[in-house]
Amino acid sequence: MPARGTVFGVGVGPGDPELMTVKAVSALARSRVVACFAKRGGLGNAHKTAHSYIHPEATLLPLIYPYTVELSPRHPEYIEKMRAFYDLSAAQIAAQLLEGRDVAVLCEGDPLFYGSYMYLHDRLQNDFRCTVIAGITSFAGCAASAGIPLISTDRVFSIVPGTLHEDELLLKLGQADAAAIIKLGSNFGKVRRVLERLDRLAGATYFERGTTDLEVVMPLAHKVDDKAPYFSLILVPGHDGGPYRQRPGESL
Amino acid sequence: MPARGTVFGVGVGPGDPELMTVKAVSALARSRVVACFAKRGGLGNAHKTAHSYIHPEATLLPLIYPYTVELSPRHPEYIEKMRAFYDLSAAQIAAQLLEGRDVAVLCEGDPLFYGSYMYLHDRLQNDFRCTVIAGITSFAGCAASAGIPLISTDRVFSIVPGTLHEDELLLKLGQADAAAIIKLGSNFGKVRRVLERLDRLAGATYFERGTTDLEVVMPLAHKVDDKAPYFSLILVPGHDGGPYRQRPGESL
Repeated sequence: MPARGTVFGVGVGPGDPELMTVKAVSALARSRVVACFAKRGGLGNAHKTAHSYIHPEATLLPLIYPYTVELSPRHPEYIEKMRAFYDLSAAQIAAQLLEGRDVAVLCEGDPLFYGSYMYLHDRLQNDFRCTVIAGITSFAGCAASAGIPLISTDRVFSIVPGTLHEDELLLKLGQADAAAIIKLGSNFGKVRRVLERLDRLAGATYFERGTTDLEVVMPLAHKVDDKAPYFSLILVPGHDGGPYRQRPGESL
Repeated sequence: MPARGTVFGVGVGPGDPELMTVKAVSALARSRVVACFAKRGGLGNAHKTAHSYIHPEATLLPLIYPYTVELSPRHPEYIEKMRAFYDLSAAQIAAQLLEGRDVAVLCEGDPLFYGSYMYLHDRLQNDFRCTVIAGITSFAGCAASAGIPLISTDRVFSIVPGTLHEDELLLKLGQADAAAIIKLGSNFGKVRRVLERLDRLAGATYFERGTTDLEVVMPLAHKVDDKAPYFSLILVPGHDGGPYRQRPGESL
């Protein structure tokens, strides 16, 4: 029996292939099986980001989500199908590992930060070696791309999913000194309403496909419709120059 | 007069040189001036992480912090000296840029996320082109290194500085579904007390020099003293397998 392979949970970052780490690139160069979460008929966003680093002889193992539209994650049928999907995906990966092959699982952003990879990690970590490679989170990638200082000194930064109920959103965003709001999609209108109620619309920035060639960036107040892809993002920054601010009127 | 140079705010990540991005490595390969924040007599942690990628003919420009011990960031003399330090640092960089040289500023973690770079960015962005390269944050690097899933579904993740007053810490950590607590140092004992009061000590993990060869990781409850370097970290994770958890007793 061959030695068991290793799982690499590879964070590919927010979309720009150059925002992948040296470690992620090396892991892909030596993996002969590459798994990617995707909708039926596609290979997914993480593959789009990472494809140029994948070994030409690698076998792709698409893990096809059972749903192609957003459903409430609280719906019992949805939960059941998703559980079965993660069970099956983990079993497919385990079969490769038992043959002695390493498997790289491509993950948008960071694998352990709101990522589907976590559900595989939970299922595989007791029986196999799982090595996780951190990735640039979407909020950091977007802030850098637009040159928006996010947070400084002793302020608190929160990552808030737009999937929360409106009253919870109001509470959580009200408590945050600064925030990134993720998982927008059909939640966009609700999120905008909450930021309006908190009087924090003016400083917020909206990002779509941040750091990619198709990036859209605009002040949130300028966005006229409520259409947003699931992987869009709002930044509500909390750095105002801080205590070490340059004195007004002074220059270098 | 030569064309003005560009500032690159280069996130070098949490400490492991392989966690630098492809983009950060390219920026260093072409920068002939490399600035790094440091204590007197040293070149700083970011330089330790990035040094193998720096061009051999590059000129190093150390930006020497006026303090080598922690002082309260609320102390007026401290604020005044730090402001003067950032003014001088920005002026030193500007002098290079006016000669047409690009300047890479090395930043631990991510430049725009609690980073000193922000104070230079504030001072330089109106007169010079500033390109920011996102870096892996310490919390993501540490979580990956230890294989600790951080946060999933519709939960809120907060980054909380240990420099906050004890009552604010209690409030902010009490509100967070999951958290990374940064800037520990002399604040460690206070942070531990707060987590005890919130009954969240048990699930927390302590990291020192995370992702480097000198990494120390342990359950926070196992740490017997209150000694912690400023760049240590506590993770209080908020992923419990989520709704898609494998059924108990099932295996692959």
